[in-house]
Amino acid sequence: MKIVDMRIHSIAIADPPLRSSYGLHAPYALRTILELESDDGIIGISETYGGQAPAEALRQLQPQVIGADPYRLTGYLSSLVEGRGAGSERSQTYLVPGENPLDATTRTYAAIEVGCLDLIGKSVGQPVCDLIGGRVRDQVPFSAYPFYKHAGGGGEGDDTREDEYGEALTPEALVEQVKQMVAKYGFGSIKFKGGVLEPEIEIETIKLLRQELGPDVPLRIDPNSAWTVETSVRVGKALAEELSGGGYLEDPVAGLENMAEVRRRLVAEEILTPLATNVAVTSFGDIPRSIELDAVQIILCDHHYWGGMRQVQHLANLCKVFGIGLSMHSNSHLGVSLMGMAHVAAATAHLTYACDTHYPWQSEKDEVVQGGRVSIVNGCVQIGDKPGLGVELDYDQLARGRERYEKCPYRKRDDESEMRKHIDPNWTRTLPRW
Amino acid sequence: MKIVDMRIHSIAIADPPLRSSYGLHAPYALRTILELESDDGIIGISETYGGQAPAEALRQLQPQVIGADPYRLTGYLSSLVEGRGAGSERSQTYLVPGENPLDATTRTYAAIEVGCLDLIGKSVGQPVCDLIGGRVRDQVPFSAYPFYKHAGGGGEGDDTREDEYGEALTPEALVEQVKQMVAKYGFGSIKFKGGVLEPEIEIETIKLLRQELGPDVPLRIDPNSAWTVETSVRVGKALAEELSGGGYLEDPVAGLENMAEVRRRLVAEEILTPLATNVAVTSFGDIPRSIELDAVQIILCDHHYWGGMRQVQHLANLCKVFGIGLSMHSNSHLGVSLMGMAHVAAATAHLTYACDTHYPWQSEKDEVVQGGRVSIVNGCVQIGDKPGLGVELDYDQLARGRERYEKCPYRKRDDESEMRKHIDPNWTRTLPRW
Repeated sequence: MKIVDMRIHSIAIADPPLRSSYGLHAPYALRTILELESDDGIIGISETYGGQAPAEALRQLQPQVIGADPYRLTGYLSSLVEGRGAGSERSQTYLVPGENPLDATTRTYAAIEVGCLDLIGKSVGQPVCDLIGGRVRDQVPFSAYPFYKHAGGGGEGDDTREDEYGEALTPEALVEQVKQMVAKYGFGSIKFKGGVLEPEIEIETIKLLRQELGPDVPLRIDPNSAWTVETSVRVGKALAEELSGGGYLEDPVAGLENMAEVRRRLVAEEILTPLATNVAVTSFGDIPRSIELDAVQIILCDHHYWGGMRQVQHLANLCKVFGIGLSMHSNSHLGVSLMGMAHVAAATAHLTYACDTHYPWQSEKDEVVQGGRVSIVNGCVQIGDKPGLGVELDYDQLARGRERYEKCPYRKRDDESEMRKHIDPNWTRTLPRW
Repeated sequence: MKIVDMRIHSIAIADPPLRSSYGLHAPYALRTILELESDDGIIGISETYGGQAPAEALRQLQPQVIGADPYRLTGYLSSLVEGRGAGSERSQTYLVPGENPLDATTRTYAAIEVGCLDLIGKSVGQPVCDLIGGRVRDQVPFSAYPFYKHAGGGGEGDDTREDEYGEALTPEALVEQVKQMVAKYGFGSIKFKGGVLEPEIEIETIKLLRQELGPDVPLRIDPNSAWTVETSVRVGKALAEELSGGGYLEDPVAGLENMAEVRRRLVAEEILTPLATNVAVTSFGDIPRSIELDAVQIILCDHHYWGGMRQVQHLANLCKVFGIGLSMHSNSHLGVSLMGMAHVAAATAHLTYACDTHYPWQSEKDEVVQGGRVSIVNGCVQIGDKPGLGVELDYDQLARGRERYEKCPYRKRDDESEMRKHIDPNWTRTLPRW
């Protein structure tokens, strides 16, 4: 089997005005859909970060991809995932995921690896999870992912989406958003995006969530490094009970040293809330120092930027060996990416927390997989028996996504500019803010 | 695809009277050949440790294997490789590899995983290395593996093998053995099994090897924990130059603490010869402590007891992350096992040393793969385009192996008994001996 065509589709999908410490989501999120077509007409697909740079990076590999055997291409390109060192200031601490230059090659590799696995799976009639070691679970659990948000459902002009969840800028509105999401998808755990309002209001939000959802739903909060060590310790103490029982405190501060300091001070107070990260540890190179400092107790992996599914499995094994928990980070995404996450999660024994997903924030109108949106039932994506990732492209929908991309002005994610444009002309991302 | 039959063949193969600190090799080494047959008549094979216990462990899994899909079986059985903790005294320090009770389940899993991968590879026409991430090399380098030995080629009675290499119980004879092996197979590095004669004689052997082979051939010595810390440091100092340039000192002492002490004392003398092991670290559970102590700078993996090919790939990644070298341990084995090692090595980027193999010690008469022995040319096994492991069983040869097993009295490897039987009735394995 040979790859005879490699098609790279830059698309835009409506995204509601969600807030985080990075700023504000633009009306459109950008994604890239990759197609690898074999000489027998089978098409493998994958989905990765969008905009100019990811598409260009893939385009540069076209000469190596076309003509290659999909079984061998991942070995042939493996230098793209070897040797990525430890992070630096030019990391996800300051740049949104997908814009971190340190993982540019691992992101490119991941998109190609998933495309190859989908192609292989479709050619032999096997689900991707069963090509990479075999499923250890059929149901992959995801968390609800509530955000403070402004009114609006995303999109622009005639292409504006319905605002399914409405504005949520108070604890009460946030709780309503969660209830709505839980009712619709059956999520069994909640990952709440903080770092937006005063820490006291975010503490109140978590406390209200606990009160309204009862004692058994794991609660997590992620302020994306918005806090000082002092504030992080204060919030950790205030929420000691609420974040116990499967909860965690994610990236309260920036940098491994600060994370370690927060951990030390909480442990000294006998507060064992684990610290999670998708910022302080974004590559294997960051791990030795993190272990040395006990800076992080849970890593949020992401096959999109960790170098693909097999690298995530390596990471899971490493986390198991060192007693580190594992969950999964997400971005605004569509069904191809969601199914990629679900397949690698299905074939990864040491996945100790429900995965994140932004999927509820996207609209049916933007979905590019045939048959519409992937189902999330009881908070889980079901891994079935369909070959590959279990989804095929709807080419009409893909064409609409491309058209939106062509029309919209966005070519990379820049939540800071969006904040300045729509909310506060003087806004800058300041770390720590509180 | 379903597995409809699982056949377990216990075989015996002639083995020369090789010496190590464990004692003496018996006239026959025991191996188990596994066949997994699919409903479309394709047969996947693997080779693992022999004798009663490994065959029985496989037999107990028959109800779970028969009827299973080979793509899913490895996920379904994954609890066999999860959760193996750190070693204890009942480890390979005292027991030969294959008899370590701590890795009983990972050994069983590995045999089934390789059988499934060979079956899948043969069903889709792909080499195993290209199913597990894709080859990063086509030529897999192996080391010469000289042993002090008594006269004899292995086997018993009418079934005695030619003594290709002759007795070697002096430095000079050992050097001749190496030259003969290098001439035949083209090995580019030498792994010398010590722990048999007085350390001064073994030092002399290494010095003579260096003198006779020139400055560029990496030299390694493995006394299988036969030495004290004192002796290990003395040998390390005496051979500082000879073991540099790609060499190593393997398991000079027993236990991580002792290994760490040897390392500290050598580093204090500015001797940076890395310490390797297949004894102090035999599972993922041993690694955190080993890293903490800097006890081991090279791990010798072995898919046969580490839980299969994917576990070896996880190990390789972990070693890369922590700056630990990786090589591969071997046992008396045939072509199915050798090709298994070659395939996982081919698909493992971070393999930093040529692999061990006992293959030159086995005879054409005992080989069970069609077409006779696997070629080693320029010290390398070539990974070709043949599906699966690239070898098929010769059923006449397999029947002869089974017959030898039935006739011979051996049901597990016990080098200590063999020493007492043939060399010294009062011999016991004493650690440390020197």
